Amino acid sequence: MSAAPTPPLTLGFDADDTLWHNENIFEKVHVRYRDLLSRYHDAATVDRTLFATEMRNLELYGYGVKGFTLSSIETAIQLTAGQISAEEINQIITLGQEMLAHPVDLLDGVVETLSSLSGTHRLLVITKGDLRDQERKLARSGLADHFQHVEILSEKDERSYGAIFRRHAIDPRHFLMVGNSLKSDILPVLALGGAGVHVPYHLTWAAERVEHPPRAVGRFFEIQSVRDLPAVLTTWSAGL
Amino acid sequence: MSAAPTPPLTLGFDADDTLWHNENIFEKVHVRYRDLLSRYHDAATVDRTLFATEMRNLELYGYGVKGFTLSSIETAIQLTAGQISAEEINQIITLGQEMLAHPVDLLDGVVETLSSLSGTHRLLVITKGDLRDQERKLARSGLADHFQHVEILSEKDERSYGAIFRRHAIDPRHFLMVGNSLKSDILPVLALGGAGVHVPYHLTWAAERVEHPPRAVGRFFEIQSVRDLPAVLTTWSAGL
Repeated sequence: MSAAPTPPLTLGFDADDTLWHNENIFEKVHVRYRDLLSRYHDAATVDRTLFATEMRNLELYGYGVKGFTLSSIETAIQLTAGQISAEEINQIITLGQEMLAHPVDLLDGVVETLSSLSGTHRLLVITKGDLRDQERKLARSGLADHFQHVEILSEKDERSYGAIFRRHAIDPRHFLMVGNSLKSDILPVLALGGAGVHVPYHLTWAAERVEHPPRAVGRFFEIQSVRDLPAVLTTWSAGL
Repeated sequence: MSAAPTPPLTLGFDADDTLWHNENIFEKVHVRYRDLLSRYHDAATVDRTLFATEMRNLELYGYGVKGFTLSSIETAIQLTAGQISAEEINQIITLGQEMLAHPVDLLDGVVETLSSLSGTHRLLVITKGDLRDQERKLARSGLADHFQHVEILSEKDERSYGAIFRRHAIDPRHFLMVGNSLKSDILPVLALGGAGVHVPYHLTWAAERVEHPPRAVGRFFEIQSVRDLPAVLTTWSAGL
């Protein structure tokens, strides 16, 4: 008796902190930003106020370095009651430009894992942030050829994943998303009937944190390295 | 004898200054920006320096309001040799936020023309700029239901139009692009074998200007209002 044919499986990959390092670049910039404002406020106040500005501006700016830079300038003016100098604001602009020009540093195991999977699965990049910045990073990563499609979204939620499923005729039951953010990569996909593999990064931006881990037996997995993905795929696809 | 069947025709529409007013918002902001710096420099110097900053940062920032705002701050610091106050920089940030929050003001004839064409043609939006900003404007425009797909690009050139043609299985000979920019909307489409309809806006950003108008008999048209589009379509499709 022959085995049932395997349905075509589609794997979605988040990009920042899943394929390449990103939050560590933000963290380095946060350190320099706190230094810049240390004459005025302690680090906790700086962090808290900047985060509040980012959340207030999120609807207008969306995700990405440019909005972060604008919110950083706005916060610096607010926290110094207008005492910050133009030269110091220029330093913040330069920090933002350095982030955008930063080399792409791939996570361990990404090249090998994508190389081994792209022959047998349809791979997508599904990411959010500034359009040009994400395209530039993908081009510089050398990974672009592994992916059939690249989706750069303004938000990763059930609505936007649903649109991707329709656009590419993806059955959610045969879709698995890999990413470091439970909020953006895993929860909306599970809610739509897909599967999720959480690969935590050692830093998580406060806006991406969730209180309760997902519960979806057979469809939710957590691994420490993308190198463990093939083993998870074997388990998951055996249950389809 | 029956007429030959009409092939499926796809019409691409630029958004800013084609579907809704945009450059006039930039122009109003330019006026206020020149005022802010008028103690230091004449308007021509301000305009020239800001444009040079925008062009220098284009590869890093891409198009859109956020990059424009960052370049405006950088230029203001440069042009005042660091004398501009944090309060004045905050005014520039506020100008940028006002641009992003600006109501969408449709161009005359757009609603009627799209309504009459969307029943018989496949309509796409093909635009560039900040992802969230363009999505927000389309949502607010009330026009979204007329379009089968929305493509927000980081650059509008032969490469990116070619990718759209492949993604949507469009034969360029049966594709016509409508827009206000010869550089971004018309020239690359003509080069790929498609047709272009130029609808000039009364203001054109310097980076979109071209020296020589296109030459492509039967595939290039210029009209003064989108209301003239149905007549152009009749002429164009008769030649297919």
